[in-house]
Amino acid sequence: MAVLFLKEMKYKPNDPRNPSSDRFVLSKGHAAPALYAAWTEVGLLSVDDLLTLRKLSSDLEGHPTPRLSFVDVATGSLGQGLSNAAGMAYVGKYIDKASYRVYCVVGDGEAAEGNIWEALAFASYYKLDNLVMILDVNRLGQSQATPLQHDMDVYQKRCEAFGWHALVVDGHNVNELLSAFSTARSIKERPTAILCKTVKGADFLGIADEENWHGKPLGSRSAEVIRDLEAKLKVGASGDIGSTLGRLKPSPPVDDCTPMKLIGSISLPSPPQYKLGELVATRLAFGNALARLGQVCDRVIGLDGDTKNSTFSIKLRDSRPAQFIECFIAEQNMVGVGIGCAVRQRTVPFVSTFGAFLTRAFDQIRMGAVSQTNCNFVGSHAGVSIGEDGPSQMALEDLAMFRAVTGSTVFYPSDAVATERAVELAANTQGICFIRTGRPNHPVIYQPTELFAVGRGKVVRSSGTDTDQLTIVASGVTLFEALRAAELLAAENIQVRVIDPFTIKPMDGALLKQAVQETCGIGDAVEQALSQAGIAHTVHRMAIREVPHSGTPTELLHKYGIDANAIFLSVKRVLTTIKS
Amino acid sequence: MAVLFLKEMKYKPNDPRNPSSDRFVLSKGHAAPALYAAWTEVGLLSVDDLLTLRKLSSDLEGHPTPRLSFVDVATGSLGQGLSNAAGMAYVGKYIDKASYRVYCVVGDGEAAEGNIWEALAFASYYKLDNLVMILDVNRLGQSQATPLQHDMDVYQKRCEAFGWHALVVDGHNVNELLSAFSTARSIKERPTAILCKTVKGADFLGIADEENWHGKPLGSRSAEVIRDLEAKLKVGASGDIGSTLGRLKPSPPVDDCTPMKLIGSISLPSPPQYKLGELVATRLAFGNALARLGQVCDRVIGLDGDTKNSTFSIKLRDSRPAQFIECFIAEQNMVGVGIGCAVRQRTVPFVSTFGAFLTRAFDQIRMGAVSQTNCNFVGSHAGVSIGEDGPSQMALEDLAMFRAVTGSTVFYPSDAVATERAVELAANTQGICFIRTGRPNHPVIYQPTELFAVGRGKVVRSSGTDTDQLTIVASGVTLFEALRAAELLAAENIQVRVIDPFTIKPMDGALLKQAVQETCGIGDAVEQALSQAGIAHTVHRMAIREVPHSGTPTELLHKYGIDANAIFLSVKRVLTTIKS
Repeated sequence: MAVLFLKEMKYKPNDPRNPSSDRFVLSKGHAAPALYAAWTEVGLLSVDDLLTLRKLSSDLEGHPTPRLSFVDVATGSLGQGLSNAAGMAYVGKYIDKASYRVYCVVGDGEAAEGNIWEALAFASYYKLDNLVMILDVNRLGQSQATPLQHDMDVYQKRCEAFGWHALVVDGHNVNELLSAFSTARSIKERPTAILCKTVKGADFLGIADEENWHGKPLGSRSAEVIRDLEAKLKVGASGDIGSTLGRLKPSPPVDDCTPMKLIGSISLPSPPQYKLGELVATRLAFGNALARLGQVCDRVIGLDGDTKNSTFSIKLRDSRPAQFIECFIAEQNMVGVGIGCAVRQRTVPFVSTFGAFLTRAFDQIRMGAVSQTNCNFVGSHAGVSIGEDGPSQMALEDLAMFRAVTGSTVFYPSDAVATERAVELAANTQGICFIRTGRPNHPVIYQPTELFAVGRGKVVRSSGTDTDQLTIVASGVTLFEALRAAELLAAENIQVRVIDPFTIKPMDGALLKQAVQETCGIGDAVEQALSQAGIAHTVHRMAIREVPHSGTPTELLHKYGIDANAIFLSVKRVLTTIKS
Repeated sequence: MAVLFLKEMKYKPNDPRNPSSDRFVLSKGHAAPALYAAWTEVGLLSVDDLLTLRKLSSDLEGHPTPRLSFVDVATGSLGQGLSNAAGMAYVGKYIDKASYRVYCVVGDGEAAEGNIWEALAFASYYKLDNLVMILDVNRLGQSQATPLQHDMDVYQKRCEAFGWHALVVDGHNVNELLSAFSTARSIKERPTAILCKTVKGADFLGIADEENWHGKPLGSRSAEVIRDLEAKLKVGASGDIGSTLGRLKPSPPVDDCTPMKLIGSISLPSPPQYKLGELVATRLAFGNALARLGQVCDRVIGLDGDTKNSTFSIKLRDSRPAQFIECFIAEQNMVGVGIGCAVRQRTVPFVSTFGAFLTRAFDQIRMGAVSQTNCNFVGSHAGVSIGEDGPSQMALEDLAMFRAVTGSTVFYPSDAVATERAVELAANTQGICFIRTGRPNHPVIYQPTELFAVGRGKVVRSSGTDTDQLTIVASGVTLFEALRAAELLAAENIQVRVIDPFTIKPMDGALLKQAVQETCGIGDAVEQALSQAGIAHTVHRMAIREVPHSGTPTELLHKYGIDANAIFLSVKRVLTTIKS
């Protein structure tokens, strides 16, 4: 940390968010105190600030979060930082085309996470020679020694096999580190890994290289340990005693990158181009909208996990290849890279794959919320309507997952017009946005001029406030089943209201409240919205309740009881119950 | 597939579940038709069966699931099968101590998944020489070429660096494959990777090695392609035309492994040993219960992600080291190995780490449901009550995640007695079970003799059916806050009922119904239970609604409005609203 912050990195200590500055990611977030100490050495924090560590009133939290000006991405769930750093380095090299470099400190314990190996493969594939990984091989995990302990040779072979230039150094030796960073700057077309053999708690009396000290304060031993450390400092440093505070200053960056503010400024070049009744899959509308946004803003980018011909993100790849990052089948890294790309609003990323496969990166998405990311996610092939591929490919848990993410916005557009507007809104909405798209073609039900907003649903069918007997809330494929059910019911003189909520989070509470008051009432989100409004209600849920089977979409909607006929029968049953 | 199923593997074609048989995992599940064809060649399926592929009435689904007798684990979400196979191989070598071997076919596209590298590291660390990975390097992904294409040398270096014996062969050459499998059998203390250079759609006219054929039927070209294939067969096989149907027979297994039926048979050796009022963390009670179950059943095993000294699974490691698998910081592999260990009820696994980090493996857990697994998951350090470590370590999404998993059972025990019973119940419950545990100590509130059941809550405080004005449903740390709030309210002559639901899924609908009817009501699960019972209701939710900060547990419960005082004020506000 001392070599990085005082000699190697180029930045302005009083302006951590400067876009030209070198970036630093502490993937092993539990080493936060070392990060805070570094920013104290360079003058941004005071020694008094350091003493507020882990207090409620202080942003010097247990693990770093972007509540601090010098933290771009939150870390603490291990093995994610290198993907974030790779995203920043990708943007630096290919989009900003700037000279800043990205440094990432990774722990040896977290190097067991597959996400790290996905990131290593990504970084070498894209020749990120502006990225340096510093691997802290201190031999000890939380509860026991790491699998490879101090086998530096194996670490080196693995990194080299993954396409990196890999150097082994004594991580406590300043000169070896300086030389390694200098070599890293000279290596072209490959990222560099500096593999540091270190001792955990080095020089700490009775603690160095010992187990059972992970994350523990020194307690009653602190006085003795500090006295011993100070004595060692005197011996080793030929007159230089104690801190370097104020004596070494980092070099300033090359000023070749300008600040950006993208969110709030991105519009589709023209209204969606569909005709009422035209059959269009929402996944195709997503691809169209992404390509159209990409046309008007060269910072709108797409990330894909080798499903671009199914999600239709390929439309952006084909029209704006420089704004498209193929991440191959490695969703954790894809999400981490997306979050890294979104840092400091350098880009507005749309990360897409099958909705089911976004579950692969739930931890990364969750950490994205802690990172205050503006990264957008699009999950296609929702629900059983994807058909014969079977349950492994069907997104059934995606809404629950994204609803649970703090501060998220969850779009579930039902037609192509609504989908294009969802993409436009997501690009301009702070926090994590998720858009759920579907595989089958459905008719366009909204005019190109229809206005959409987050948290505003649409009444797509109503016979009038006095005659609607019940409200059906449905999205996507089930909205069309609900509309068919409404026809069947109308033929029996039963009028129902059908609501398309557009966003599942937030739910349009006012529209639902009105519907409940005027009539009587999608699962968890609907109930929560009603309860927040203090409205007593019952909700009859219709959803997949078992592991689905392969079959045609029509067969599956029928088998699992969410087709028009099932809705028709349910409504009649509910009305009978109410009347009795 | 032909070499594996007709020459290499030892099994009985008419008894696929025989425990002594070699096991096969098709990690690239989209190649399911090849698997179904193999079982047709050996006589378990008929050619007519094959023609039901992907139909609703057929179990020959788009991707393999254990609805088929010869499938142990569902595949189709990529990069997971090798972990499952490693779990089976671990059990084979160390627990069954039997001679069966485990074969896993992995695609090159899915080799980009970090999960694969976690599994490779795990298998070599544990010297699983009964495990063979067959890597199908066919160069093409779904939407474009793979990153490494046919660079066999890099694949070999990577596998070797991860500790495997790695051989490169022509994947279409029967003799090379036979020789490689023979070598694999001779390699000791290391797993073997057979890296097969193949051509996608080999020998298919106009399709071989071409893009845009992934997952597509031949359509109008089928007649021509089949004619060409048949012509090629005649040329190459010196008189052997077409199928080997019935002519080659696999060798039978060495009969050294007996069937097991564990679920339903596992009991704690004695009631939980806690005194009322004793302060015990539920995570500690989990550790105690796991060790106690492990004592009476040597097939109860624990899997850890280097958090065992925090989750207290270390209690099993210390008392029964042979029943404990340290998986290091690689949660995706840990879950996949757990699912592999649970196959055919060879073991009853408990996979534990911080609840927050189980989100890392949501896709694997979701696939566990499709796999009909009986693997159990335990997530500790739930909610803000973990304190100063900050939001990255706090499980806030775990309940939403596990509730969304098909067929899951979700336990949220509030004291040590309930926790021990939850562990015992989970061991005996089919499907995925999740137990949420907490970090802080709380008083024991149940007698050692208290009976617990899935879906049965407890009324922990009530003044009587006529006097309770409102019901509070709470679990874990918030149950104790609710009990304190109830005291504060009683001092103002407001009586409330307090319910501990014990399981969040299923929720005790009858108990809630009674409470709503007698009084007036944790979030989504409560509302769903009430709506399923057709009871009109309002639910006032109290939960974390923003990314929490570091701080002491008490400070955080206060700051985010879920402590006793906040509950006290909420109850008064709700009662005022009802009365007005």
